[in-house]
Amino acid sequence: MAWKSIGIFDSGVGGLTVLREIMQALPQEDTLYFGDTARVPYGTKSPETVTRYAAEIASFLIKRDIKLLVVACNTASAVALPALKRQLSIPVVGVIEPGARRAVEVTRSGKIGVIGTAGTIRSSAYTRAIKRLNPDAVVLTRACPLFVPLAEEGWTDNQIARLTAQEYLRELKESKVDTLVLGCTHYPLLKALIADVMGPGVTLVDSAAETARTVATILAEKKLLRPPAENGNHSYYVSDIPAGFVRVGNRFLGGKLGDVFQVSLDEEEDNN
Amino acid sequence: MAWKSIGIFDSGVGGLTVLREIMQALPQEDTLYFGDTARVPYGTKSPETVTRYAAEIASFLIKRDIKLLVVACNTASAVALPALKRQLSIPVVGVIEPGARRAVEVTRSGKIGVIGTAGTIRSSAYTRAIKRLNPDAVVLTRACPLFVPLAEEGWTDNQIARLTAQEYLRELKESKVDTLVLGCTHYPLLKALIADVMGPGVTLVDSAAETARTVATILAEKKLLRPPAENGNHSYYVSDIPAGFVRVGNRFLGGKLGDVFQVSLDEEEDNN
Repeated sequence: MAWKSIGIFDSGVGGLTVLREIMQALPQEDTLYFGDTARVPYGTKSPETVTRYAAEIASFLIKRDIKLLVVACNTASAVALPALKRQLSIPVVGVIEPGARRAVEVTRSGKIGVIGTAGTIRSSAYTRAIKRLNPDAVVLTRACPLFVPLAEEGWTDNQIARLTAQEYLRELKESKVDTLVLGCTHYPLLKALIADVMGPGVTLVDSAAETARTVATILAEKKLLRPPAENGNHSYYVSDIPAGFVRVGNRFLGGKLGDVFQVSLDEEEDNN
Repeated sequence: MAWKSIGIFDSGVGGLTVLREIMQALPQEDTLYFGDTARVPYGTKSPETVTRYAAEIASFLIKRDIKLLVVACNTASAVALPALKRQLSIPVVGVIEPGARRAVEVTRSGKIGVIGTAGTIRSSAYTRAIKRLNPDAVVLTRACPLFVPLAEEGWTDNQIARLTAQEYLRELKESKVDTLVLGCTHYPLLKALIADVMGPGVTLVDSAAETARTVATILAEKKLLRPPAENGNHSYYVSDIPAGFVRVGNRFLGGKLGDVFQVSLDEEEDNN
């Protein structure tokens, strides 16, 4: 069982920031990544639609023998996690809970900001997760729709990115949050800029890094960690032509992306 | 037959700029609009996937008795039009051809710029359509991924939009194109800004307006125009929860959006 892979999925390329952290924390583990590039983005879709997509992808990965599933997509974590946990017998880790827990740990004032896609913010998933851990926390949120295309363009440090960050973050900054959760897997690419705009008094919480930490803890507790040996293998599947995923993905993984295979979930269903 | 509706579809809300032009040009006509909001955007998807989606939507609209189909989506027009024309017995109008024809008519220097989503630009559909009409034309293209979220945020006239337009349009401007095709249905919302950045020597071609003109011409030729009488009725269908479509759509239609119904194309298929 310990020799099985860690399964990770996202609506597209963003979850690679989570994979990158898992590769760093657990270099001996094999991973299977699924990017649902034919149906990206999830942020604009209904909870019902996203839950259905998540179940299809989980079924695809389970057939390929995974020992743990990481929902490396904030929208899917926000809406599909309870259903996935009911349906699957392996541990399922989302990106909301680890980020929320870390935010509650590091805040001194109890005033926490959360940024994400329109879908994640509308779902209030971070607010609920934070309030469950600390009912007295004050949570301020802001959707930042331009951050994803900025990260994908590689415009992470120009004046357009800076003005956009200033516009989106103004109210959170004026409200004097002391902690800011990056509630979208694309945002670690804009981390330096966001930190600079928020100023030195604000601690950024990177959900990707926190999620990798949670995965390591769960696998250790369940004695499912591979013995440290050589580096693991990494497989990549997408639901649409890989070209765009490969181009942007290499930016996310620092050029280390392996072969990417296109699969059709429909055919998958038909064949089984 | 003349009393049937005009069917229009897009991957989402952008095609409403085409609908708006059709409502202005042909106020007596009934229209059926389909926005594939569960699967938006098409620009990042493969030609095969987009062609399959377009066929599903065409089938949905045909069942509701349309006399002409407008593919009000540049990506779908670029990749799915030949297949739709083969499959359907009613006229099918895309947004590429009308914009290309107009560009060839208005250019004096023969140097034409085209802007659009990554998918539309990668497809080279405008370049091919323009070259078919004038093989000597020089066509310069540029993908502008941030323009769609800017239009949807309503950031059509702030400094972020201006700097983004300057960045995207710099090379086209330096290359001295005298005509610029707005090859994405969202871009008419940024028309004033784009005109300002390009300067007075450049004629903008609005594909939405040109498409409406083509629809009017075809219906007149085929004697399928409704006799001018009272204003037509307008129905709206989307494949995901309507909330986001309604909010952004009202910005596109100047607050005139009617009731929006959510439908599932899958169930549609199952029921028939």
